[in-house]
Amino acid sequence: MNSPTNIGVFDSGIGGITVLRALARKFPEENFVYLGDTARLPYGAKSPTTIRKYTEQNLKFLMTKNVKAMVIACNSASTQWSEPLFENTPVFNVIQPGARAALARSSELRIGVLGTRATIESKSYELALKSLNPDVQVFSQASPLLVHLAEEGWIDDPVTNLIVYRYLQPLLSQRIDTLILGCTHYPILQNSIQRVTGQQVELVDSGEALAEDLEQAFVAGRIKRSENPTRSISFYCTDNAETFATLARRLLKDDGIDFENFEMADLQDIR
Amino acid sequence: MNSPTNIGVFDSGIGGITVLRALARKFPEENFVYLGDTARLPYGAKSPTTIRKYTEQNLKFLMTKNVKAMVIACNSASTQWSEPLFENTPVFNVIQPGARAALARSSELRIGVLGTRATIESKSYELALKSLNPDVQVFSQASPLLVHLAEEGWIDDPVTNLIVYRYLQPLLSQRIDTLILGCTHYPILQNSIQRVTGQQVELVDSGEALAEDLEQAFVAGRIKRSENPTRSISFYCTDNAETFATLARRLLKDDGIDFENFEMADLQDIR
Repeated sequence: MNSPTNIGVFDSGIGGITVLRALARKFPEENFVYLGDTARLPYGAKSPTTIRKYTEQNLKFLMTKNVKAMVIACNSASTQWSEPLFENTPVFNVIQPGARAALARSSELRIGVLGTRATIESKSYELALKSLNPDVQVFSQASPLLVHLAEEGWIDDPVTNLIVYRYLQPLLSQRIDTLILGCTHYPILQNSIQRVTGQQVELVDSGEALAEDLEQAFVAGRIKRSENPTRSISFYCTDNAETFATLARRLLKDDGIDFENFEMADLQDIR
Repeated sequence: MNSPTNIGVFDSGIGGITVLRALARKFPEENFVYLGDTARLPYGAKSPTTIRKYTEQNLKFLMTKNVKAMVIACNSASTQWSEPLFENTPVFNVIQPGARAALARSSELRIGVLGTRATIESKSYELALKSLNPDVQVFSQASPLLVHLAEEGWIDDPVTNLIVYRYLQPLLSQRIDTLILGCTHYPILQNSIQRVTGQQVELVDSGEALAEDLEQAFVAGRIKRSENPTRSISFYCTDNAETFATLARRLLKDDGIDFENFEMADLQDIR
């Protein structure tokens, strides 16, 4: 039996493609398998128990795709899976790298977190930040409408600016100097968010920070580097395949990533 | 074996409670079983295939609860189930009654429809209206953000007014005289919607119109009236039980409806 060769990545939908893109750029020789659980999104309004169950099903699905490591791109799912292994395969989530990146950029140690209701209620970022530096002050805000504004395509829109302003006002009044974009959808609204915060607030995209964790795992030998220089990326989603493919192609078009290997996944078979 | 005694009602979540309330008021001696599929909401952004699959699972679940009739309160699900029977049990959906009620109130036969993306793309209301009166003109608008504004509780809010205005502007410029609220969440935003349309536009809540269809089925003998005057209502949801119960209690508190019979449902067992 050959040893597993792929890095699995899953998100509740399309947002995690930005995470995949960051990983694909940093590791041009690695093979990836991406799963977007579009039938069951959004995760951010679901209960911890349900998010955990869906996360396990998604990891089980990826395990059928010959993976040597798995990445939970979805922040809401990341809050419900902190274990380093799933059936002996390394699992990475976005919380720790996001917290580290925020602390590295923050001069005043006043850090804001925007996320789904599930992510904010879990206090995962707050705990991760304080375990890394007990002096940090964390100000969190659930901002569930932002996911839907991003999905509606109301980007750089006056209504979006107004809603972003309402969510951010309590954080800005606390004089945050750094803001964690704690949901894979939020980088899509980055312009609107930065306009409201002003340039003096650093925005942190947890997905980008995650690539560092993988690099460390390669260096430490926890994951074997790919021996095959012709890389492949396969895509799976659970619903709305056409919308998913259109958006994914748009997000990946400048990276020359092949979009041939695209299939529907039936997670009901994975339990 | 006793003949079935309950009327089953399902919705993707909490919105259908307003439909249940209308039915419970009209039929004070009937027993009801309500299912809110809160784990998989919203339905309105899913594909027709997935909505149909979930609808079948929900109907199958209700069939295990001794039902003599079933009501699809969710508009998105109603567009994917037009059959009058499921396993020999009568099924009612909100499209036909909503269309009839709108035509009854419209003087100029210029009718607007607000709905989820799934509902609008199905053209179900348009087809139902035109089959009832070929002279009607129908103007449809998908307004997916309204579900999330209602769930966020941003009711009677300037941001909500602004978004309602944006969605309604194309319909108002067509001089509609009647507007179908084609999603169980929209009646929650009725004040905001009526403020934008002005009083000269009639708002139609499909759920309310549905009770008439059931009454006709009773009169025609398609469904047997309850012989038990002490009625019971049971509630099931698939996730976020606490939030569901709080909202349901609030919506039902003035009707003196007992909320004792409340359980979680695992639809994964129903396939």
